[in-house]
Amino acid sequence: MRETQRALSEILEHLQVSSKKLRSEQVDGFIDALLGAKRVFVVGAGRSGLVVRAFAMRLMHLGIDVHVIGETITPALRDDDFLVALSGSGKTSFAVSAAKIAKRIGTKIAVITSYPRSTLAKLADHIITLPGRTKIAAMESYLDRQIVGEYESLAPMGTLFEVTALVFLDSVVASLIVKLGRKEEELRARHATI
Amino acid sequence: MRETQRALSEILEHLQVSSKKLRSEQVDGFIDALLGAKRVFVVGAGRSGLVVRAFAMRLMHLGIDVHVIGETITPALRDDDFLVALSGSGKTSFAVSAAKIAKRIGTKIAVITSYPRSTLAKLADHIITLPGRTKIAAMESYLDRQIVGEYESLAPMGTLFEVTALVFLDSVVASLIVKLGRKEEELRARHATI
Amino acid sequence: MRETQRALSEILEHLQVSSKKLRSEQVDGFIDALLGAKRVFVVGAGRSGLVVRAFAMRLMHLGIDVHVIGETITPALRDDDFLVALSGSGKTSFAVSAAKIAKRIGTKIAVITSYPRSTLAKLADHIITLPGRTKIAAMESYLDRQIVGEYESLAPMGTLFEVTALVFLDSVVASLIVKLGRKEEELRARHATI
Amino acid sequence: MRETQRALSEILEHLQVSSKKLRSEQVDGFIDALLGAKRVFVVGAGRSGLVVRAFAMRLMHLGIDVHVIGETITPALRDDDFLVALSGSGKTSFAVSAAKIAKRIGTKIAVITSYPRSTLAKLADHIITLPGRTKIAAMESYLDRQIVGEYESLAPMGTLFEVTALVFLDSVVASLIVKLGRKEEELRARHATI
Repeated sequence: MRETQRALSEILEHLQVSSKKLRSEQVDGFIDALLGAKRVFVVGAGRSGLVVRAFAMRLMHLGIDVHVIGETITPALRDDDFLVALSGSGKTSFAVSAAKIAKRIGTKIAVITSYPRSTLAKLADHIITLPGRTKIAAMESYLDRQIVGEYESLAPMGTLFEVTALVFLDSVVASLIVKLGRKEEELRARHATI
Repeated sequence: MRETQRALSEILEHLQVSSKKLRSEQVDGFIDALLGAKRVFVVGAGRSGLVVRAFAMRLMHLGIDVHVIGETITPALRDDDFLVALSGSGKTSFAVSAAKIAKRIGTKIAVITSYPRSTLAKLADHIITLPGRTKIAAMESYLDRQIVGEYESLAPMGTLFEVTALVFLDSVVASLIVKLGRKEEELRARHATI
Repeated sequence: MRETQRALSEILEHLQVSSKKLRSEQVDGFIDALLGAKRVFVVGAGRSGLVVRAFAMRLMHLGIDVHVIGETITPALRDDDFLVALSGSGKTSFAVSAAKIAKRIGTKIAVITSYPRSTLAKLADHIITLPGRTKIAAMESYLDRQIVGEYESLAPMGTLFEVTALVFLDSVVASLIVKLGRKEEELRARHATI
Repeated sequence: MRETQRALSEILEHLQVSSKKLRSEQVDGFIDALLGAKRVFVVGAGRSGLVVRAFAMRLMHLGIDVHVIGETITPALRDDDFLVALSGSGKTSFAVSAAKIAKRIGTKIAVITSYPRSTLAKLADHIITLPGRTKIAAMESYLDRQIVGEYESLAPMGTLFEVTALVFLDSVVASLIVKLGRKEEELRARHATI
């Protein structure tokens, strides 16, 4: 329980700090792009893939036409779609491949990442920077690992980024609800019954 | 951005409150059961299913033999396995069905829920109660909806429970890392490369 | 290789026999219902779940609005949807639960099964009977197992039903293509690019 | 029903022809590699991904340690694993990426494809060639499309390859059952109960 509590505190502290670093022009641009898109596609691998699916589920509840790349009924991307790619490191090959194809087609791309200069971020029309001790940080910088020191085992690899991304995207959903004037009843009516 | 920030604050506040309500005997019992299990199975539907998958991924990184109910290579449950079921309402039929089968076989069950008296919770050997304004709360109690009032549209349905569950389970992972004496290098070595 | 060839022959023979047992009124009714539906939902568990997903993918290529029960963006079922449930035994609890909910809502249901008197089949508006030595057959009837004898190990459990169902559903796709006047170019244009 | 029957006949005819073209040295080599592997990993995209999952499910029933690339609990590939990649065209980027990583690590690779000279096939230690009018055939060769002519709409895109691959892999399962001396009871005992 002691380590559980310590890890909890670290995660919450990270969320507090992150929430203050959000840049309103990034967030507002992202929300406007979501509202303007004909269809939204989301992509992510591993735990980032799970977070982006949780976001997609809420977009569906809101009545937005949304698809998860890699699922059964996902159609071909078109130029008037909007792609949301989530990757802490900005290097994940699955997300990068998707973004490259989107770029070629002319689809607008939002990238949510800790690395605004990563390969993925360079393909973006919209970037949301979320702090996170990502896998790369820990791998690439010895100094960083010295500094984060005792964190190392408590929120391993992408944990901080992934949790921050889920909380951020759920907060974006709040904005969408207000801007679309949705009532919770309407969301619930679209919620899968099976 | 204003609603995004407001929603963020509400979620963070909920996480702060929730972290103080964790009961150490529940958490310690859950961690011991995870460490003692031959194999761990996880089950959840919708966004709870995504959260429980994020947990399963970390258990795999830790070298624990873990399976997600409903995925391709998940084998039949046995009596010496350990089932972790996640459901805010404790009513989700997919999780309840799994727990009933586990009960019949004699598999020990942990239930993570906001409703310690729900159908699912009644099947549990270990309960972890996490506060959350669940779908049911909003649906069943008019009073509750009056009270939560302006939240209603900002963290719709199971959001608060789901976020709390992810943060809680990632903190449990921290305890497991320490108790198993794992180094981050070892986790990273098991992290999927494709 | 010898067993591979023997198994291949058995599967092909089963497919030949099955293709002659198709009843045109069942097939035509099913095709008309698919064409008339506002949205199509498919459900199945295990290997039957994979077969029904392969069908859903083609329906999407055809431009039909289709959803797979259990995937991320699947919305709530409505009364003007059409549910296609696939289960050799007609007993799979996941498919039966879905069909019961559909029944309550008033959604029309097609059931593809080897057991036209199973729980699942009794909920159906359209039944397609496909022969298959299902798991139940082998489990419940000693006589049956004596008769099928040497098959036992060569096409275990639901194999014959699952293969027959895939071939049947791909043939239904052919009818849909002709009736909708689709060109292969159009299908390919909807085929996921990532 | 008429088109359904015609498509059925074409698929069955294709299966008959394909079953005669299997080369025993390819099949036997593949089966030996499966039996000798410490762990088996499977990869495929779209409908090929579904077929390869159906195979993985049976390997699990046989007691073979198997993982599906892209699923939640799939660990990092190691050099003593065995990768089975399925792609009609041999060009699918998801399968090709996986095979390239496997190659770098030193993992042995089996490729099941219609194109023994494709990018994917060139990475293979074991190739199984299965005839199929693949998407590429139809796209790249005008002559081919003239020849296959009326097929075009009846078994669109990868259909023939995918069905052939499922039947072939289920026949390989028959060989594995015999070589491992498994009884159907044992398979059924591992079959997921939920």
